[in-house]
Amino acid sequence: MDFEQVLEREGLLIENHLERYLPSEDEIPFIIHKAIRYSVFSGGKRLRPLLVLWAYRWAGGIGDGPISVACAMELIHTYSLIHDDLPCMDNDDLRRGKPTCHRAFTEGIATLAGDALHALAFELLAVTGNIQIIREVAHAIGTKGLVGGQVIDLLTEGHEFNEETLKYIHYHKTASLITVALRCGALLAGANTEEMESITNYGTNLGLAFQIVDDILDIKGNTTQLGKTVGSDENKGKATYPRLFGIERSESIAGDLIDCAKGSLPPDKDNTLFFELADFVINRVY
Amino acid sequence: MDFEQVLEREGLLIENHLERYLPSEDEIPFIIHKAIRYSVFSGGKRLRPLLVLWAYRWAGGIGDGPISVACAMELIHTYSLIHDDLPCMDNDDLRRGKPTCHRAFTEGIATLAGDALHALAFELLAVTGNIQIIREVAHAIGTKGLVGGQVIDLLTEGHEFNEETLKYIHYHKTASLITVALRCGALLAGANTEEMESITNYGTNLGLAFQIVDDILDIKGNTTQLGKTVGSDENKGKATYPRLFGIERSESIAGDLIDCAKGSLPPDKDNTLFFELADFVINRVY
Repeated sequence: MDFEQVLEREGLLIENHLERYLPSEDEIPFIIHKAIRYSVFSGGKRLRPLLVLWAYRWAGGIGDGPISVACAMELIHTYSLIHDDLPCMDNDDLRRGKPTCHRAFTEGIATLAGDALHALAFELLAVTGNIQIIREVAHAIGTKGLVGGQVIDLLTEGHEFNEETLKYIHYHKTASLITVALRCGALLAGANTEEMESITNYGTNLGLAFQIVDDILDIKGNTTQLGKTVGSDENKGKATYPRLFGIERSESIAGDLIDCAKGSLPPDKDNTLFFELADFVINRVY
Repeated sequence: MDFEQVLEREGLLIENHLERYLPSEDEIPFIIHKAIRYSVFSGGKRLRPLLVLWAYRWAGGIGDGPISVACAMELIHTYSLIHDDLPCMDNDDLRRGKPTCHRAFTEGIATLAGDALHALAFELLAVTGNIQIIREVAHAIGTKGLVGGQVIDLLTEGHEFNEETLKYIHYHKTASLITVALRCGALLAGANTEEMESITNYGTNLGLAFQIVDDILDIKGNTTQLGKTVGSDENKGKATYPRLFGIERSESIAGDLIDCAKGSLPPDKDNTLFFELADFVINRVY
């Protein structure tokens, strides 16, 4: 089975559990559950949840134990996209080929849908009974993580920026959630200090590469495949690697990060999936 | 010492710990920590955190053990006010006598400040290591609690409404957070089933009365004392008790709820503070 098939099969597993964890559209208040489901079931690749499961198994866990934690990661990712798309943030009309949440349901409902997903994520994180992952995730998505990255991203828009700022944005906005997803999986499998360190370095490098490729795709990609408007970073004056270094050098930096990610993993473990994922991230077209 | 002095003294305790838990304005990204502190330190009564401490002691706990949980409640309350004030929600310019967060820091930063407080609250909730309170709080602020109330509040604005809808809004928007604050304090003190039931009923009735009084104050109150624009519910066509029943009947309903709140508490315990709080809620002018 090649990697894209694994991605599809395991993605379906996540999908089925998300279906089970999310309140149905028949539950009051209907509209918020409709908005939540609209945004969660819009064809994401479910990478963050898969990182939880894969890191769990990589560190010796068996089966799909942390599936609730995996789903929580997708809810956090979705909440951050919904808020990020709002007119007061990135002001995007299109996400995964469909109108963004606030275009489909009003800004008020979109704000609340993000808030509700944020809360529901912690309900799912609590299912395993592990308090350490609550701490790690809450920290990774606050002002020293995800939100911090969004703030600097927002403030930098339309302004001059340097590589340091760019690294800050990518590290916080993208790499922190990817890394914490891996860490949670490994923690739940009882990973030792060396394993935690390896998986953290893998996540950081993978996350940074992921965002550079995202920025490159915003220029080179195809609107239909990406499901969002190509060229929108450029139009908004977003801080991106291609704007600072051009596409070719950005591709080479992303390639180096992918090598670093792979190099972070200890040779005595089965790293196949993580190697394939790293290659997928650098070669992806959507 | 009378109740208002207790409120002031214990409020200062909360204030000091909030000061310690919140990142300083010197920490990057400065602006988000500035916005967070601007909104958290704007003179709230700190009722929700005090409910945690009081329920903890009421159920046999000693000292200020759950202070991090108490502070988490204030952060959640503040996050919900920041988002609620946004133009896409209640569109309020004034909160506690100062420009609302988005008026002072832009809508984008206000949205992110709310998100960051939401995450930080869970970091603080995790300090005690008690997973049950994570579950309870996450549930109480999601679509079956706080957010659910906000959704119906938003949808009802400018429309006809009945008592059932109004109760739904108040129960979810206001009573759920007040109740969960009490429940967390009691849980952390190891309360038994009867105590949990009593404190839950007290919280529900107190919360419902609190919101009715809030709506009455929006009509009868004084802008300077309240720190927000009087008459704004009426202008927005908000669903309130005074609009449905007039002020006199609303006052009588609130009074009955306060009696129910008091009646929920078992006679064999020291309920002094909770009785005084109930009287404070019905008699308050700010």
